[in-house]
Amino acid sequence: MIMNSLRGGIACVLFVLGCVTASTAPAADRDKLLSEPGVYGTFVAFRIDADWGKLDHPTRIAHLTVLKGVVEQYREKLAIDTYLLRGLSEHADLLVRVHATELKDTQQFLVDLQASPFGKHLTTVVVFHGLTKKANYVPGFPDNLKNDLKAASESGPYAIVIPIRKDADWWALPQEKRAAMMQEHTEAALPYHKTVKRKLYHATGLEDFDFITYFETAKLDEFQSLILSLNKVKEARHNRRFGNPTLVGTVRSLDQLIEVLAQ
Amino acid sequence: MIMNSLRGGIACVLFVLGCVTASTAPAADRDKLLSEPGVYGTFVAFRIDADWGKLDHPTRIAHLTVLKGVVEQYREKLAIDTYLLRGLSEHADLLVRVHATELKDTQQFLVDLQASPFGKHLTTVVVFHGLTKKANYVPGFPDNLKNDLKAASESGPYAIVIPIRKDADWWALPQEKRAAMMQEHTEAALPYHKTVKRKLYHATGLEDFDFITYFETAKLDEFQSLILSLNKVKEARHNRRFGNPTLVGTVRSLDQLIEVLAQ
Amino acid sequence: MIMNSLRGGIACVLFVLGCVTASTAPAADRDKLLSEPGVYGTFVAFRIDADWGKLDHPTRIAHLTVLKGVVEQYREKLAIDTYLLRGLSEHADLLVRVHATELKDTQQFLVDLQASPFGKHLTTVVVFHGLTKKANYVPGFPDNLKNDLKAASESGPYAIVIPIRKDADWWALPQEKRAAMMQEHTEAALPYHKTVKRKLYHATGLEDFDFITYFETAKLDEFQSLILSLNKVKEARHNRRFGNPTLVGTVRSLDQLIEVLAQ
Amino acid sequence: MIMNSLRGGIACVLFVLGCVTASTAPAADRDKLLSEPGVYGTFVAFRIDADWGKLDHPTRIAHLTVLKGVVEQYREKLAIDTYLLRGLSEHADLLVRVHATELKDTQQFLVDLQASPFGKHLTTVVVFHGLTKKANYVPGFPDNLKNDLKAASESGPYAIVIPIRKDADWWALPQEKRAAMMQEHTEAALPYHKTVKRKLYHATGLEDFDFITYFETAKLDEFQSLILSLNKVKEARHNRRFGNPTLVGTVRSLDQLIEVLAQ
Amino acid sequence: MIMNSLRGGIACVLFVLGCVTASTAPAADRDKLLSEPGVYGTFVAFRIDADWGKLDHPTRIAHLTVLKGVVEQYREKLAIDTYLLRGLSEHADLLVRVHATELKDTQQFLVDLQASPFGKHLTTVVVFHGLTKKANYVPGFPDNLKNDLKAASESGPYAIVIPIRKDADWWALPQEKRAAMMQEHTEAALPYHKTVKRKLYHATGLEDFDFITYFETAKLDEFQSLILSLNKVKEARHNRRFGNPTLVGTVRSLDQLIEVLAQ
Repeated sequence: MIMNSLRGGIACVLFVLGCVTASTAPAADRDKLLSEPGVYGTFVAFRIDADWGKLDHPTRIAHLTVLKGVVEQYREKLAIDTYLLRGLSEHADLLVRVHATELKDTQQFLVDLQASPFGKHLTTVVVFHGLTKKANYVPGFPDNLKNDLKAASESGPYAIVIPIRKDADWWALPQEKRAAMMQEHTEAALPYHKTVKRKLYHATGLEDFDFITYFETAKLDEFQSLILSLNKVKEARHNRRFGNPTLVGTVRSLDQLIEVLAQ
Repeated sequence: MIMNSLRGGIACVLFVLGCVTASTAPAADRDKLLSEPGVYGTFVAFRIDADWGKLDHPTRIAHLTVLKGVVEQYREKLAIDTYLLRGLSEHADLLVRVHATELKDTQQFLVDLQASPFGKHLTTVVVFHGLTKKANYVPGFPDNLKNDLKAASESGPYAIVIPIRKDADWWALPQEKRAAMMQEHTEAALPYHKTVKRKLYHATGLEDFDFITYFETAKLDEFQSLILSLNKVKEARHNRRFGNPTLVGTVRSLDQLIEVLAQ
Repeated sequence: MIMNSLRGGIACVLFVLGCVTASTAPAADRDKLLSEPGVYGTFVAFRIDADWGKLDHPTRIAHLTVLKGVVEQYREKLAIDTYLLRGLSEHADLLVRVHATELKDTQQFLVDLQASPFGKHLTTVVVFHGLTKKANYVPGFPDNLKNDLKAASESGPYAIVIPIRKDADWWALPQEKRAAMMQEHTEAALPYHKTVKRKLYHATGLEDFDFITYFETAKLDEFQSLILSLNKVKEARHNRRFGNPTLVGTVRSLDQLIEVLAQ
Repeated sequence: MIMNSLRGGIACVLFVLGCVTASTAPAADRDKLLSEPGVYGTFVAFRIDADWGKLDHPTRIAHLTVLKGVVEQYREKLAIDTYLLRGLSEHADLLVRVHATELKDTQQFLVDLQASPFGKHLTTVVVFHGLTKKANYVPGFPDNLKNDLKAASESGPYAIVIPIRKDADWWALPQEKRAAMMQEHTEAALPYHKTVKRKLYHATGLEDFDFITYFETAKLDEFQSLILSLNKVKEARHNRRFGNPTLVGTVRSLDQLIEVLAQ
Repeated sequence: MIMNSLRGGIACVLFVLGCVTASTAPAADRDKLLSEPGVYGTFVAFRIDADWGKLDHPTRIAHLTVLKGVVEQYREKLAIDTYLLRGLSEHADLLVRVHATELKDTQQFLVDLQASPFGKHLTTVVVFHGLTKKANYVPGFPDNLKNDLKAASESGPYAIVIPIRKDADWWALPQEKRAAMMQEHTEAALPYHKTVKRKLYHATGLEDFDFITYFETAKLDEFQSLILSLNKVKEARHNRRFGNPTLVGTVRSLDQLIEVLAQ
């Protein structure tokens, strides 16, 4: 009952936010940013401070309206996705994923986000960056494996982000040895290709990891089986660090996130 | 004397809270959630902020009444258990264990909990997730061992949660070698089967551990002997991380916890 | 001079606190709790928050009077010792050591302590637990060594608490190999038996260490020589973690501690 | 629109700050400090506290004007560069790089910076120091390699700072073995010499790293390819720690930084 | 200009503080404490909280006057040195080094320091302890080496404190092997004996390190060359931890430090 009356209040608010949305610019070519190589993906996990919850309801709504404006303004250039981590990840409440052709555009968006009235309640707890690339090893894979990888994967609502650091031995291996191990890795992952969506970001040098792996699934048990399969191939022995932190959350549109934040 | 008069005050309060409870929905099928495979278990340890203790007594009671309402509302879908960690674990005061068939329901509950007036005083310090599964190795065990494992275990008041990460060698072992080691592990644990209740959650991929092990006992010395026995079997050499953090507390009903929090 | 006038103020206060003390219950059988096996020892290190120092003097005195009442109330069941860490340990100001036959009694005391007006200014930074046991290896030692171990050790004012985690190899060793190494360890420690008091707590499973070792001495150089001797025996190579954190402080009666806290 | 009106406001402000700048002293011999051996380079990453964002606009402008004065005052002695980390690095918002012939001059500047009204909102999160030296190994390189290294490198807008700690084996190697490995390292880096600017600081003893490597580039993908190449040479196996933390940001003049901070 | 007027203000203050100083007791036998074996050296690094900078100038001066009184009062018993870390070390602003024949005297001083109005703005971030001892290995060194070690070393203004933990292998080595390695270590250090002052504290058991090494120099490049030389000897391979944290700062008299703090 308490919850229901709160939700009623939010419904009105969303109407108002909807008006703001109507005037925003056309979105960037999201599909291209999300599928092409040479794109920078950035993951930023935020914690919301204790003061946010103490603001009165109209103030929070006003702040979230500005937030929405900031995000919409950048949809021309960037592909922005939002996630709710609260309850499923330690120390973080929100996750923002940004795809851009230049990292300085991502930075400008994040600076404006943090300068907004809502953003002043955010602390950055995790930043991951990576670059999408043409598949390194796939060209040498057998044709049937290449074909299997073309099938579409199902999506959300669960999203998991796992950063990986390879050991020094991995990088010292000749390319063909790494390719053979990656083929074994890919074959082990294949049974889960349909139920678990994967996306790989190359992070070496941009931070303290070599890869950022992004997963989306409706079936967490399938996701777990995928990771267990990957643990068993030889390439896994070259993971010096896997996760730590692992981010777990649910895909939420900005409007859905705003509904949670308005509570 | 000071303590006694405080306790008198709480007794009245609990009466009031009792009235709220009377109107809540029927509980979820707790037994099923707590015994079947394919259920997600989530452990969240919270620290209470310093401001909570500075609120006046009627405000705290009002906030705890809302807390109780939030928890009761979710008992339809979730099995929720509560624990007091304060004094026995570092950096955390409370532990909530939630069993659900979908992790997004757990998240919704935790989001509502943190949005409640009491929840705004909580900081999440640890989140563990895991999936219950049919026993992996038990089917191949000898019949007498299987039978011994069917006996009931005694419960509380002490609860201990130990996360475990296996090393890369463990996952590279063939299934039958792991099964043999797990049989040795199970036989080492058998003498403590009656006095120490155990429950296993598979965590790989959902966070930075492979297993979350939950223990409940009235005899902490028996629990310690169990862990010492398990340390001596070959499988223990594949624990890359064991504990760190280890959570230790006591099982408390929500009403008992509220009594402590109202102080 | 400033210090002296402050100390005058405290002297009066202690008189008042003395009155409160007079009405408290008879102490638990301290000697038994401190000497027998099967007793749980808990070490809790606290940091005092910045607000405490900003309270006016009469308020601090009033809060410390309540603190004294809380501690005295539990002396019936528990053996409680207090230490000053400030200046000698990082991140912590006070240490409380509690011996109890049941850990839930210790928890109840610590919960009441933290719910007291002074306790609301405390943050728990370290919690160690352990169980006292009959000496594991001593029964097999030669008689002269056993006799030497019966001599009394001198006490305080310095107290050092060092947690230890053994490696996996240690637990995999057969009992007689561990016994032989522990005899070498004990012989290396013997020259310091008189000047350095030692007490061992078995922590495995109750937290992320296997042993909590407590030392008391008036001669820190002798204590250091003891640790250097122990570093040289074979058993030391099985210490995966030694200290980190190491707690160093001085033994202080509750009244002495209150004098410091009232400043 | 909101953003645009803010930017209008800042434009005025910068005019005012411009007047202050006009009266400042002539800059230190920046070129010498940035190119010669025997110069100390210090990198300090700061986090801005939450209170800064809550100050009204005129106060922030006034504080930033003083900041500008402090920096200009030290340009006589020091080469000072500024960077924006926010959005691209965890836990830090700003980076200041200072070159000086004496580290005590750098300290005096940083003390005055932190004593300024803006500086009181800064928390130091990372400090790296290093000394520039004549190239250790280059004198023994073949002439064509030496020539290639003389070509100019392109600059910004991206800056990356990676600290490195070598292992004990590295330092135990004879000089000629290290020289041979460094030649292989240099050859691997050569293809990126034009697009990625590098500068090396020797840090051993001055902090917990042996080298601080500074990179500047307009092409982050080229930078990443450079690091991947360096990962594959034998010398990389002697990196005990590489990054952690890695700092990523964009080069910003003080005026550009002030524009961001005024928001 | 702003800075200059501030410094004028401080000059007056120092005059007032000078009067307080005039009435203090004669200093302890500093030379003995700083040169003899059997003395405890304690290093405490403090961070100053954000509130300190917000106090008005007269209040800060009043608080610093009390600070000066506290320090002077203990000069009878203790040798107290002060350092400025701000700008050169992470997370810490000040360093205090105390030499005492009993660690409880050091504790009493630090307790009084933290109880003073200025001390209430300090957070302890690092505490190192160690005992000075007669040189362990020097008696067996050749005479010419012994003679060379008797020459005086130059001092400040730079001070560096590096804690070291040896590995288990080191302690297991026979004394003569360690002596041979320490002779090689000493010979490697000899060329820097004149320009870099060194002092060694034995820390085993008193904290999580085995040695605290203190360096003072006017020539940081010589200091760095010294550490590089020491990295190349066999004994260095037994350093399990070297630094982390490394403290870097400048020697400042209490009056000089007060000048900085009054800003």
